[in-house]
Amino acid sequence: MIYLDNAATTFPKPDIVLNTMNIYMREHGANPGRGGYEMAIAAGAVVQKTRDELALLINADDSMRISFTKNATEALNIGILGILRKGDHVVTTCMEHNSVLRPLHYLASNKIISVSYAKADKYGFVDSQTISKLIKRKTKMIICTFSSNVTGAVQPIREIGELASKSGIIFLVDGAQGIGSKPIDVKKMNIDILAFPGHKGLFGPQGTGGLYVTKGLEITPLMFGGTGSLSGQAKQPEFMPDIFESGTLNTPGIAGLGEGIKFIQKSEIINIEKYKNILTTRLYRGLNNIPGVKIYSPSDHKLNSGIISISMQNLDSAEVSNILDERFNIATRPGLHCAPLAHKNLGTFEIGLVRFSVSYLNSIEDIDSAIKGIEEISIMH
Amino acid sequence: MIYLDNAATTFPKPDIVLNTMNIYMREHGANPGRGGYEMAIAAGAVVQKTRDELALLINADDSMRISFTKNATEALNIGILGILRKGDHVVTTCMEHNSVLRPLHYLASNKIISVSYAKADKYGFVDSQTISKLIKRKTKMIICTFSSNVTGAVQPIREIGELASKSGIIFLVDGAQGIGSKPIDVKKMNIDILAFPGHKGLFGPQGTGGLYVTKGLEITPLMFGGTGSLSGQAKQPEFMPDIFESGTLNTPGIAGLGEGIKFIQKSEIINIEKYKNILTTRLYRGLNNIPGVKIYSPSDHKLNSGIISISMQNLDSAEVSNILDERFNIATRPGLHCAPLAHKNLGTFEIGLVRFSVSYLNSIEDIDSAIKGIEEISIMH
Repeated sequence: MIYLDNAATTFPKPDIVLNTMNIYMREHGANPGRGGYEMAIAAGAVVQKTRDELALLINADDSMRISFTKNATEALNIGILGILRKGDHVVTTCMEHNSVLRPLHYLASNKIISVSYAKADKYGFVDSQTISKLIKRKTKMIICTFSSNVTGAVQPIREIGELASKSGIIFLVDGAQGIGSKPIDVKKMNIDILAFPGHKGLFGPQGTGGLYVTKGLEITPLMFGGTGSLSGQAKQPEFMPDIFESGTLNTPGIAGLGEGIKFIQKSEIINIEKYKNILTTRLYRGLNNIPGVKIYSPSDHKLNSGIISISMQNLDSAEVSNILDERFNIATRPGLHCAPLAHKNLGTFEIGLVRFSVSYLNSIEDIDSAIKGIEEISIMH
Repeated sequence: MIYLDNAATTFPKPDIVLNTMNIYMREHGANPGRGGYEMAIAAGAVVQKTRDELALLINADDSMRISFTKNATEALNIGILGILRKGDHVVTTCMEHNSVLRPLHYLASNKIISVSYAKADKYGFVDSQTISKLIKRKTKMIICTFSSNVTGAVQPIREIGELASKSGIIFLVDGAQGIGSKPIDVKKMNIDILAFPGHKGLFGPQGTGGLYVTKGLEITPLMFGGTGSLSGQAKQPEFMPDIFESGTLNTPGIAGLGEGIKFIQKSEIINIEKYKNILTTRLYRGLNNIPGVKIYSPSDHKLNSGIISISMQNLDSAEVSNILDERFNIATRPGLHCAPLAHKNLGTFEIGLVRFSVSYLNSIEDIDSAIKGIEEISIMH
């Protein structure tokens, strides 16, 4: 199978990720941070090592400001539901995923907050000027995806971060499409809260994710429970990372994630970016020549995280994806990609788009097969 | 190493669990329920299979009433924070884990709810009469652990369930110590909400857990996000299991969990119970003869989920556990076990207890080594 749904989850994972998880479960299967015996201490060390790798990757001063979550959605919900209170206003963009839109909708529909949505251009880019104009006196938070999961458009995070910082507004970034593929620097970009998955660009397993929170920001956790710390008190510990890590962590997953990050660091993000750019540009050019194909993703690979989304005249996106799967054994993602406002912005809410998303582990041949598949579908119809 | 900390997480896991996870990640690594291509459909089938296995295990009519969570703590928090509202009263027990005590404390300290704690006897048993006496007009929920994670005492869940059902009160059970070890039947026991981990008695990997909710009970989720369903709407789907499954699931973990459950079903819980009873009784008798050892766990194995907790005259529990680890290579858990009220009830809050917890995969030799270790420590001191 040719897998081009890497924006959902990367596949395959590097062998070292899978092998490490297996060895971990065979040899160090204990719970970290609870027991004092050797295996429990070893488990704690594995978790800390991954935390340190993450801090290095995003340039966080202190790895203890990173908590592990089950996915990026949990991390985003902690940032959103844990901070926003009655009367707050939020500026976000129409390019957000349901993992941002749905918690905001919950708060807004219960009349707790109000939300303004910045529009995007026809490739999904949002302008920091547009965001600036939406800021009100009560704006507590700006939420922006690092890169659109529909078009791949990389947002001007640094500019928006500067704007937020100057305005004294909390800046929350959804790093789902970007982390591991593009450099993310929480300090240079003035990111206060970064939510990210472990199983996409970081090549960890599903069931992993994380949350970075800048020092001094207070957040109410989504859940409360045993943390292995201050066990004598009924009150949840207030310090990171424990405050957001109640209950048993996905330790084998975190062990695998650590290897995924090391794999990236070894290859260096700049090389990953370069190679993904080659694949994305080749896919763009190949598809751009096919009659009836309309591309919604930016051609400038510097501003694209590795996604090319297309429509084909008259055809429903699900139909195209089905043919790609059944006749050409190519996995893509049709429909709305959990981002309804993005599709409304692009005018594709009714038919959806066929999304090709590449990974560092795709080959040139994968790209050429995808182009060939769409060519044949174009001829057939 | 002799591992006797199975109440934290079982170790080792059956080989089939580890191998299945590895194969899953190598061959079916896609996200379930999102793409329409073959691998995504296969991933969805794996998740559904585990859901069906779980429903069978706990005698739930409809497997769609089970949502996957990252651990039991998340499931407990959904049940507690998602239902209780201003003015509600809760009856729970002093034997609960911090995963119950801390969310309740959060609500109570914010003056949202009031809580009554049923006392336990010297082995940690709670009486349904004691619970009955604490019920008030505003009692919305009874929360009880299936079995104490400190002493192993199995609570009279069926009696409490009957009481709750008759009184029209929601009954939430923390199945952390019990699922996979003792039969749990949500119908016969009148359990409205069952929270459980995947990585203890079910032999799944860490990072898995679940929540059963009886039909007709409405719960606000802890988080909101992409579910792969109704993607065009900003409102969270209101149906189970999607309502509690936002974002990417721990699919390799769920694949492993499915094999863990099959492993149990193959051995049959009645046989697992029998074998664990042999181990627990042997441990009880062996430790009971040692001078200076005081046992806090029930001797009747029918009422013990596989835990023997002890104190040794003058010695801090951490010191005993350390010696067991360093000199005898035996892993146990000292201290408070994230259950401060239980230790206050037992009078062991200051010194803690040394907890031995057995699994179906422990051997008779493991038990004898533990007894020998404590014997030698007793002679030494």
